[in-house]
Amino acid sequence: MSVTAAQGFTASGVAAGIKENGNPDLALVVNTGPSLAAAAVFTSNRVKAAPVLWSEQVLKGGQVSAVVLNSGGANACTGPLGFQDAHATAEKTAEVLGHSAGEIAIASTGLIGLRLPMDAVLSGVGKAAEALSPHGGEKAAIAIKTTDTVHKTAVAQSPAGWTVGGMAKGAGMLAPGLATMLVVLTTDADVDGPGLDTALRAATRTTFDRIDSDGCMSTNDMVLLMASGASGVAPDAAEFAEAVREVCADLARQLIGDAEGASKDIRIEVVGAATEDDAVEVGRSIARNNLLKCAVHGEDPNWGRVLSAIGTTSAAFEPDQLNVAINDVWVCKNGSVGEDRELVDMRYREVRITADLAAGSESAVIWANDLTADYVHENSAYSS
Amino acid sequence: MSVTAAQGFTASGVAAGIKENGNPDLALVVNTGPSLAAAAVFTSNRVKAAPVLWSEQVLKGGQVSAVVLNSGGANACTGPLGFQDAHATAEKTAEVLGHSAGEIAIASTGLIGLRLPMDAVLSGVGKAAEALSPHGGEKAAIAIKTTDTVHKTAVAQSPAGWTVGGMAKGAGMLAPGLATMLVVLTTDADVDGPGLDTALRAATRTTFDRIDSDGCMSTNDMVLLMASGASGVAPDAAEFAEAVREVCADLARQLIGDAEGASKDIRIEVVGAATEDDAVEVGRSIARNNLLKCAVHGEDPNWGRVLSAIGTTSAAFEPDQLNVAINDVWVCKNGSVGEDRELVDMRYREVRITADLAAGSESAVIWANDLTADYVHENSAYSS
Repeated sequence: MSVTAAQGFTASGVAAGIKENGNPDLALVVNTGPSLAAAAVFTSNRVKAAPVLWSEQVLKGGQVSAVVLNSGGANACTGPLGFQDAHATAEKTAEVLGHSAGEIAIASTGLIGLRLPMDAVLSGVGKAAEALSPHGGEKAAIAIKTTDTVHKTAVAQSPAGWTVGGMAKGAGMLAPGLATMLVVLTTDADVDGPGLDTALRAATRTTFDRIDSDGCMSTNDMVLLMASGASGVAPDAAEFAEAVREVCADLARQLIGDAEGASKDIRIEVVGAATEDDAVEVGRSIARNNLLKCAVHGEDPNWGRVLSAIGTTSAAFEPDQLNVAINDVWVCKNGSVGEDRELVDMRYREVRITADLAAGSESAVIWANDLTADYVHENSAYSS
Repeated sequence: MSVTAAQGFTASGVAAGIKENGNPDLALVVNTGPSLAAAAVFTSNRVKAAPVLWSEQVLKGGQVSAVVLNSGGANACTGPLGFQDAHATAEKTAEVLGHSAGEIAIASTGLIGLRLPMDAVLSGVGKAAEALSPHGGEKAAIAIKTTDTVHKTAVAQSPAGWTVGGMAKGAGMLAPGLATMLVVLTTDADVDGPGLDTALRAATRTTFDRIDSDGCMSTNDMVLLMASGASGVAPDAAEFAEAVREVCADLARQLIGDAEGASKDIRIEVVGAATEDDAVEVGRSIARNNLLKCAVHGEDPNWGRVLSAIGTTSAAFEPDQLNVAINDVWVCKNGSVGEDRELVDMRYREVRITADLAAGSESAVIWANDLTADYVHENSAYSS
């Protein structure tokens, strides 16, 4: 299913030889129309990889006929030559597909600071074009994996006859704005570029922008939404936005569930906030607190670390009115000791932290992971 | 030496029974005058422990005759009863010393969210008062240790006949504004409260505020500077400020050198910044990047993670003009590959990262630690 769940798309995933281990490493997703409308959001990191700089230009034209994604190398911090490599990949793809290079988006993921093996990339594009299939969505999703242990796909279908499908990769460097991820969403709904952009930004704001595995923001993130219009149905805007949000939320949850070295998925819900911005700020501060992340790993309901994280924010609250629940046990009430911490059962992978700021009625949910020796090992034992 | 290196101070450290393992856990430092001038800086965490709230009140009076410090419990997030405990400790100390409780500062460190065993604390104050000695500085420094593996002291002496001495504790929750630490500085120079305040704030701004072990800000930090005037010398203001800065820098470096689970001390120097604030912002962003901290642990000169950390800041720079050196090898030039990364030798405990923003002439140094499986273990295997 994945990116080929919607009509009007073909996809493929091949082993191009970019990864030294011979695993699949290049994916191609092609929009066969009739529409080529597209929208995308990119990393807010100011150090942007070459494919991000290239794809930002492409998206300004509002049309995307295909996207090439490679794992095995980020093509980030590679200077003007790296940008030439992204450009050359688009030209090659345009040539084999008979499209315009200005409508080919490029995405890369892997180690920063290394040039891509362009012979492998360019011959891989040819192989991928030959392998294109209306059932190629799974193979494409597999080819973009880096340290992901599983590939991630999601689909939402409307009774009105249109579909939104998607694939994602991302396992480390997951933090808001965006997380370190590549995501391609496709739909056969007939929606123009501005409509796609509105739905996509609304969806990512409360999904991908609210997962924070390790506080580290990537140079390569991209979430691309392409619409073929092949269903012939112009959807209700609200229903379409909800379908896009649903697919994004599903993929975001899968990213957290497969984060590098993680043993726990932490759902942080901030309630009672004066503003949504306050709730997000507090949620992110909790999500990034290494000491709390260690405590969760140790299944220790250490609410003091939650309070010390809240205390570093500028959100509206009074310290003596803060309440914190861990797995629904209110271990902190009015900024002090609450229910017995022995009542908290943290054995399961999902841990729920609720922070009540007692300052209003706004809320937000941020997803994070624990901090583990495996995370340290994965990110210190070799370059990634 | 420590806090009794300067004339006019006595100190002691005793095992009061606050820690279950029977280790020393209560320190007392008394200013025997003739002056009782003092200044202090406190954590900028909005969730402040009871002893911080108490001591902030004391410092408003501008005079501190003694400070009681306990390890084994932070007395943070303990509500009104916790504040009463801090107050009672000051009253008891005033009683045994014949002072006013309004001039007794209190500091605590240890687990958040638990009440202190007040019987032990109050009887400990009595024991500590009996043990006071003009040579008690080392014992006081030992009694404030928590997960510190060594006690930390520093002294600076002026040819003009005055001395600044100090002790510090802190091993985790070390992050700017302040780090998780308790620091007591003493001097026999004759300096009034405003003079102490100026020297102390200038010193902490570039020392304790620029170490960042784990990005986590404490609820209990305090740096207290007490002046007895016992030398009879009114120092040159600039020389005094430099002596205070020197002692603070020495203690700050010792804190990083003993940070929980760390195997590397990382000196991050940001140069070529448009403003000092930019340099500090960039330095802190690098200092808090978990992926980079893991890479340093693995002795991997992963400059891409440095660039991705710089890219999350609002500092003035152009991505294609950034330069990064690791242990003096410029592995990144103009935002791309520079000298051969194989030239970087990272075997030693101290690792130097230099980030050149090529945007001006300001600079700042931030000290940090690597991220290790030992850090995870220390902070997940038990409550701390």
